[in-house]
Amino acid sequence: MDKNTLLERLGRQQIETPSWGFSASGTRFGTFPQPWSATTLEEKLADAGEAQRYTGILPRVALHIPWDKPTGALKDWQAVAACARQHGLGIGAINPNVFQDPDYQYGSFCHPDPRVRRKALDHHLECVEIAKAAGSDGLSLWFADGTNYPGQDDFRARRQRMLACFQELYRALPPQLRLYIEYKFYEPAWYHTDLGDWGAAALLCRKLGPQATVLVDTGHHPLGTNIEWIVASLLDEGLLGGFHFNSRKYGDDDLTVGSINPYELFLIYNELAAAEEEGQATAAGRCAARVAYMFDQCHAYKNTIEATIQSAMTVQEAYAKALLVDRAALQRARQACDVTGAEEVLKDAYHSDVRPLLRELRTSQGRDPEPLKAFRASGYSERAVAQRSRRPVARAGAAG
Amino acid sequence: MDKNTLLERLGRQQIETPSWGFSASGTRFGTFPQPWSATTLEEKLADAGEAQRYTGILPRVALHIPWDKPTGALKDWQAVAACARQHGLGIGAINPNVFQDPDYQYGSFCHPDPRVRRKALDHHLECVEIAKAAGSDGLSLWFADGTNYPGQDDFRARRQRMLACFQELYRALPPQLRLYIEYKFYEPAWYHTDLGDWGAAALLCRKLGPQATVLVDTGHHPLGTNIEWIVASLLDEGLLGGFHFNSRKYGDDDLTVGSINPYELFLIYNELAAAEEEGQATAAGRCAARVAYMFDQCHAYKNTIEATIQSAMTVQEAYAKALLVDRAALQRARQACDVTGAEEVLKDAYHSDVRPLLRELRTSQGRDPEPLKAFRASGYSERAVAQRSRRPVARAGAAG
Amino acid sequence: MDKNTLLERLGRQQIETPSWGFSASGTRFGTFPQPWSATTLEEKLADAGEAQRYTGILPRVALHIPWDKPTGALKDWQAVAACARQHGLGIGAINPNVFQDPDYQYGSFCHPDPRVRRKALDHHLECVEIAKAAGSDGLSLWFADGTNYPGQDDFRARRQRMLACFQELYRALPPQLRLYIEYKFYEPAWYHTDLGDWGAAALLCRKLGPQATVLVDTGHHPLGTNIEWIVASLLDEGLLGGFHFNSRKYGDDDLTVGSINPYELFLIYNELAAAEEEGQATAAGRCAARVAYMFDQCHAYKNTIEATIQSAMTVQEAYAKALLVDRAALQRARQACDVTGAEEVLKDAYHSDVRPLLRELRTSQGRDPEPLKAFRASGYSERAVAQRSRRPVARAGAAG
Amino acid sequence: MDKNTLLERLGRQQIETPSWGFSASGTRFGTFPQPWSATTLEEKLADAGEAQRYTGILPRVALHIPWDKPTGALKDWQAVAACARQHGLGIGAINPNVFQDPDYQYGSFCHPDPRVRRKALDHHLECVEIAKAAGSDGLSLWFADGTNYPGQDDFRARRQRMLACFQELYRALPPQLRLYIEYKFYEPAWYHTDLGDWGAAALLCRKLGPQATVLVDTGHHPLGTNIEWIVASLLDEGLLGGFHFNSRKYGDDDLTVGSINPYELFLIYNELAAAEEEGQATAAGRCAARVAYMFDQCHAYKNTIEATIQSAMTVQEAYAKALLVDRAALQRARQACDVTGAEEVLKDAYHSDVRPLLRELRTSQGRDPEPLKAFRASGYSERAVAQRSRRPVARAGAAG
Repeated sequence: MDKNTLLERLGRQQIETPSWGFSASGTRFGTFPQPWSATTLEEKLADAGEAQRYTGILPRVALHIPWDKPTGALKDWQAVAACARQHGLGIGAINPNVFQDPDYQYGSFCHPDPRVRRKALDHHLECVEIAKAAGSDGLSLWFADGTNYPGQDDFRARRQRMLACFQELYRALPPQLRLYIEYKFYEPAWYHTDLGDWGAAALLCRKLGPQATVLVDTGHHPLGTNIEWIVASLLDEGLLGGFHFNSRKYGDDDLTVGSINPYELFLIYNELAAAEEEGQATAAGRCAARVAYMFDQCHAYKNTIEATIQSAMTVQEAYAKALLVDRAALQRARQACDVTGAEEVLKDAYHSDVRPLLRELRTSQGRDPEPLKAFRASGYSERAVAQRSRRPVARAGAAG
Repeated sequence: MDKNTLLERLGRQQIETPSWGFSASGTRFGTFPQPWSATTLEEKLADAGEAQRYTGILPRVALHIPWDKPTGALKDWQAVAACARQHGLGIGAINPNVFQDPDYQYGSFCHPDPRVRRKALDHHLECVEIAKAAGSDGLSLWFADGTNYPGQDDFRARRQRMLACFQELYRALPPQLRLYIEYKFYEPAWYHTDLGDWGAAALLCRKLGPQATVLVDTGHHPLGTNIEWIVASLLDEGLLGGFHFNSRKYGDDDLTVGSINPYELFLIYNELAAAEEEGQATAAGRCAARVAYMFDQCHAYKNTIEATIQSAMTVQEAYAKALLVDRAALQRARQACDVTGAEEVLKDAYHSDVRPLLRELRTSQGRDPEPLKAFRASGYSERAVAQRSRRPVARAGAAG
Repeated sequence: MDKNTLLERLGRQQIETPSWGFSASGTRFGTFPQPWSATTLEEKLADAGEAQRYTGILPRVALHIPWDKPTGALKDWQAVAACARQHGLGIGAINPNVFQDPDYQYGSFCHPDPRVRRKALDHHLECVEIAKAAGSDGLSLWFADGTNYPGQDDFRARRQRMLACFQELYRALPPQLRLYIEYKFYEPAWYHTDLGDWGAAALLCRKLGPQATVLVDTGHHPLGTNIEWIVASLLDEGLLGGFHFNSRKYGDDDLTVGSINPYELFLIYNELAAAEEEGQATAAGRCAARVAYMFDQCHAYKNTIEATIQSAMTVQEAYAKALLVDRAALQRARQACDVTGAEEVLKDAYHSDVRPLLRELRTSQGRDPEPLKAFRASGYSERAVAQRSRRPVARAGAAG
Repeated sequence: MDKNTLLERLGRQQIETPSWGFSASGTRFGTFPQPWSATTLEEKLADAGEAQRYTGILPRVALHIPWDKPTGALKDWQAVAACARQHGLGIGAINPNVFQDPDYQYGSFCHPDPRVRRKALDHHLECVEIAKAAGSDGLSLWFADGTNYPGQDDFRARRQRMLACFQELYRALPPQLRLYIEYKFYEPAWYHTDLGDWGAAALLCRKLGPQATVLVDTGHHPLGTNIEWIVASLLDEGLLGGFHFNSRKYGDDDLTVGSINPYELFLIYNELAAAEEEGQATAAGRCAARVAYMFDQCHAYKNTIEATIQSAMTVQEAYAKALLVDRAALQRARQACDVTGAEEVLKDAYHSDVRPLLRELRTSQGRDPEPLKAFRASGYSERAVAQRSRRPVARAGAAG
């Protein structure tokens, strides 16, 4: 690939940041406050704008409802969108929340009580309206639904309840809105999760229609799972909707992306880059062109903005390396069952140092070539500490 | 449930034994010969007949091709079927083998080379003919296909090659033959498996047609997987075709069923029993009525026949306990979100001692109430040692 | 074993309940309030007393400091102990808390900053004093210490800091106080845990002295871990100090004990019962005689008291079955490498229905033979709802 | 670090190759013959010499007894050593084999039958003599010992049997011989392994003496295990003896090192490099200076020699990157609890392209800068195919 094409493709790379990624977060054992962390939506948008300013690949912010509902000066969704624009941002996916309210203790779309299902569905319908008002083009859906003990509920009944809710939601969608349906192996449900794996999510999407797609959260699989194979399978089915990027060593650790196995992240991007190169000619190519990339990380131990910038740089590197893969050589080795040769093609790209290229990209965009260092030097966090009074941590939970 | 219904349902329980379960087996570190183990098909059928005679729930033997091809006195499939009948047995599922021949080193249905795919497909077509000739009504399909290193092959191309082969196979099926399509998380492929989970198998079946069903091998999942949820999901989709029962603590350990977590086996049967009770009224009920139950275990450390009898007794106990579940009480507790109450309904059934009931069942069938003890006392293994000359172990592999 | 011996051994079985097991709990996604749940120490002791009254095997309550510090009417530790006695209870292990205070964000005994280590150590020394004042004979020590990202801190330096703190703590121990040192595979540290497994804890205890012992929390291992083997190994080393019983399917799920794999719980008790029978003749026998049994569970979906009673009944059943094991027959089968025979000895005990025996035990003690049903019928929870005003949930975390 | 020091340290890096790594291997489902693979010890030494010639870091070959016993032209150990020297090689660790003989079906050092334990011990004593005769300075010990079903044997009795055997072995050691004691989570034992983790091995070594050390096989842990933390812990205890390098995604996959998570390999080398820099001043430094590095991989899908060369290049890269770590900057960030900063120090080294440096090293040694390409171009494998007649595969197993 010639360098201009390379820079041009890298220049188009985009990831959404989650508004909640700029708040204090923690574990079930407690939340560690960060004196600079954002509490209000204004602060979250300001922080997201800062991360975008240094990296240039974070142009949208995903919102979580009700955490990010307009209040105070941001009196409605138009005001929210305007505030985002001021910070150089658009509004990304809308994330309904049906896991914190005590009514959802035993489920939302799958709850045995039709009243709770109705409430959860109404919240989703409200989020459709919010998406329209805020200019978002997708709903990112994560369900904590599941059970905690053998026998607790009827797996098949729950499946059917979920389908019925989804069908009503789907009918309410305007044509420009996509559903990104997340699956998760476990947590916070400790015995079973109703959407426990990509197969369950894919079969559900097939029953709904083309606006329903699967969202892959890289931390939501059993250990050892080959995520790049799932990505390829979903591309082949035309069902891959988006990603929640993060990293994990054990459970759903929500660490910064690429921090545990950066090679895995490269292998995921390798699947995506290959599909992109097929263009509109294949289902996978068409699917890859529309993938919604998002972060979903908890920064309990790192400065939230620094962690976001670091993550942006990491996915840039992974994508850049994927673009360096010599696809013709790879294809030849594969055809010859030359396992070592095929692997070496990938390793050659992976072991290349793409940081000079990315510095060049940033310089050409008028940005500092070293975003993390530049942000650290900027004094933004120090100013935030001064401006944002020390308050009790308002949020009592994490996003899925 | 009244006792007569209980005994009647228990009397209908059936499991297929695998012919290869009566051979010596081992691990990649070596095979441990058992002096009584079967080498020829005649010996395998004799052993399977013995297990059936003591338990009464093992009326069919699954065959592995080419391991069990007719030779010598068993000159054709009619002779094989007749020999089986002599031992009180029918022929169960036919298992093609596309993993041992060196041609399959890099795959069978997914191999990059069309010549290898053709060979694998022809073998499957041959197995369709064998099934017809031997009176079997199903093909049990396990593929070792996968890759061992990142980059080795193109996931999506492999997916499409597999689909094309399956479509040709499906067209060759007579209406009475079902495909039981097995999935497996890993092994012997160490980087990815082409049919790696139930979702991949289910999506494939959907593309083929109603004779294609998913086979659940209880040892083929990531640790922690909720298998009973997968069973319920497949029942709900009408896609559950059959089981390979065995037990595992770590990988695909192929231990005797129920030996590591007997409660899990009960929970699986609980899903099946509940669906059976729905009868033809639901997709799940119709599906449950046709499930093909089979063992797939490696008896490297136990006498093969004893292990089979022990396994048969174990699944009888699990099913009996599942039949004892008070479904009305369970339903009430579930509706009330009474987690403890619902769990107690299951535990009450599980902690019941069903062994007296099963002894009664066996006595009513004219069998010894204690099959394992009776077999041990029979001297069969000792006679087998005497009759079966010590030979070099002929088999160089295990079944999936 | 004759029935009297059996009843006598069962009559001696004891488990400590954790005070925090009677509070509302949840996950990192939120806490679900239970209207009856305890907030004050008086309420926790009342609830623990209730569980003890119905089961008779829960005579002590473990306390968590600072959560359970005396306040209000319970003005000092003497008042706490008196209140406990009123409810038929003694004070169990004292649990220091060095994970919630923001100072511990990056560790306690392992923190790079000596000021934080000092603070953590002082808290432990304070807990030694509390144990003396409250009449407790053990400190149960769990450390959230670990790191979240590669490179974050120096593994060996942390190890040495921890050892130094422990050495100072050990020197402060009066002779009757034991340390129960817990290990954990992961969470809330997502990259490494300083006491990550039993080996790390055992090596530490060896450096400290005989009052330092290892505590096994049944939910703190990698999936697939053979816990009964660890228990046997620690018994053989004379290092097993105690248990935190709970159950898990995935991570540290803190479900009620025995709910996922009751056979595993039986196998653990089988090791303990076998060692007990060796008496003072072996290191394992001496060790088994002093084991401190405790629950450590989170009841987010079950009534806290019901879950405790259910758990008590579960461990009674597991222990009763372990006592039924025919040790002579087991020994004979083992010596003959009769794998099936040895397993059948265990299965015979496990599949026995010991509930009649336990009902008899309870009746002989003047208790209701069905503790869970009796408690449910008692109206205690309903009264608690009425008496305990609805308050904001005070606790922001879970115990390890 | 200045470049000369860097090149000098890289020039001292060494890894042992296993003789069995040049044979055909496979899985329990079958062995795939490679037409060029080595069968005789002469062929294995020739192949190992070839790998050493291209890489320069593979100066010794570990042997497996009885697979590599002198036969034919290699009439005794002197002849073997001479043949190795001819290929530029020395003799590495001696690996006893107590897992293939049918006598070891139920264990070796832990077997209930003292006759089998005696046989296993005698084999080890023979290997001590072989080590002396062949000029080896270590015994690499892997035990398949374990059980397959609950109840099969007495964990504590097995522990004591193993200790007794080890004590006798230890007494027979000449002072220059070290024991490298390997642990493994599971396989081929499916219920428990007698040396199941590093803690079990470490406690055993402590009972034996300073010549007993722990060997870390990178594929022998539960998924998610932080191996670099184990390495650091063993260094801190002065107990780290050596490595069996390989890679895994699932079980003990025995893939080429670094192929699944190259960052993990870097993190392991980072611990080793840091300890090396402490020199004789610390226990860890003294321990690191003596670590025995070895490969233990199964090349079922790659050309055996190519895979070995590729592996050698991979560990060179990992070590080179570890040497680039700015330890002073790392220490500063750690002391400040600057998680992001500390991580960035590691990432900066890891993302550097060290291949030019390694090409320079090789050129300075008179080697081809691109070992894998040069070997591929050499025609060696093609000549081996011609010279080594196609034979039935002689080996029926894999090494641990």
